[in-house]
Amino acid sequence: MEIVQQLVTLRARPRGFHLITADIEDGLSAIGHWRAGICQVFIQHTSAALTLNENADPTVRIDFETYFNKAVPENEPDYRHDYEGPDDMPAHIKSSLLGASVTIPIRNGRLALGTWQGIYLCEHRNRGGSRRLIITAWGN
Amino acid sequence: MEIVQQLVTLRARPRGFHLITADIEDGLSAIGHWRAGICQVFIQHTSAALTLNENADPTVRIDFETYFNKAVPENEPDYRHDYEGPDDMPAHIKSSLLGASVTIPIRNGRLALGTWQGIYLCEHRNRGGSRRLIITAWGN
Amino acid sequence: MEIVQQLVTLRARPRGFHLITADIEDGLSAIGHWRAGICQVFIQHTSAALTLNENADPTVRIDFETYFNKAVPENEPDYRHDYEGPDDMPAHIKSSLLGASVTIPIRNGRLALGTWQGIYLCEHRNRGGSRRLIITAWGN
Repeated sequence: MEIVQQLVTLRARPRGFHLITADIEDGLSAIGHWRAGICQVFIQHTSAALTLNENADPTVRIDFETYFNKAVPENEPDYRHDYEGPDDMPAHIKSSLLGASVTIPIRNGRLALGTWQGIYLCEHRNRGGSRRLIITAWGN
Repeated sequence: MEIVQQLVTLRARPRGFHLITADIEDGLSAIGHWRAGICQVFIQHTSAALTLNENADPTVRIDFETYFNKAVPENEPDYRHDYEGPDDMPAHIKSSLLGASVTIPIRNGRLALGTWQGIYLCEHRNRGGSRRLIITAWGN
Repeated sequence: MEIVQQLVTLRARPRGFHLITADIEDGLSAIGHWRAGICQVFIQHTSAALTLNENADPTVRIDFETYFNKAVPENEPDYRHDYEGPDDMPAHIKSSLLGASVTIPIRNGRLALGTWQGIYLCEHRNRGGSRRLIITAWGN
């Protein structure tokens, strides 16, 4: 068993859901000879998240943004944590609903994603800036 | 440290939440002598999910279906991705809310689930068909 | 590659969201010399959950409680599983929305959390009692 770890900084992206599968595959090195393993991608932030979903039709990502904005509305009078702006507390909640990491099997040297699965960066802030990821992979 | 990986195809199940702990335990081989480890179960789809929840009372699984159908309604006029039917976009959203994998400790050769924990297949499509899982376990 | 596993029992906490990063770091032993690894924290219950979120302002945790109580209301006439009290079925649903584990990279002998990331115990029962965790870490 080997384990490798790599830091990746994603360039700033606008609020919304973004396919980043290629960014992760580029960050994966030294796994090409593994028969079986796991790759974990972790985001070091609490106002953005990672998830797996449909990798083909861009309207899916638009519908995700629409859904989460309705499910976790801004400007709720109940929120106490609001001094960073109306997108702040909803960003924290969306991040925990979606999660800070995705964990994907490796099979025959590649991420064993299903045909329609891609990795999404879920950017919940209006100006989230660049985002730091840690990719950790283990296998043999 | 060893790592083992196994493909499991789940037979088609109706829309709803289904206990599949036994299917996963059947798929686990070669871990009986591990003192400590981890088992990850991954679903290669974007309209079904995996989660851990109550393994005894079947009404819990019915209430899950009721809750998620209310929380992520069909036929929202806002959805743009609707050409595969009214259950399509909700299935994608529910899948990301629940997640594509569960990761469970192994202890003394067995899944270290709590007394009341079972593994659910969350089938969000009316006709999802069979579902492909990858089970990866590592430990020693 | 090494793997270590440790049981941790968290003392009973009131319903709500609680920072437990220090409890987990105390439970981590024998990883101080690892260059790279992963730590998984798993909760053996179906009415409490774990998530990563903002570690500084306590109002974030209050807003989480407020949000989840609205998003998963008690006393829904639809729930069939209600004999353990009005907080029972909502606790199960919240637990699956948030998840039973967090998985965090280890880097240079420490949890590689972002500056603002902390580990939350999400206690969804009015009287949840003490909670059993399993910490599993692997790396080298």
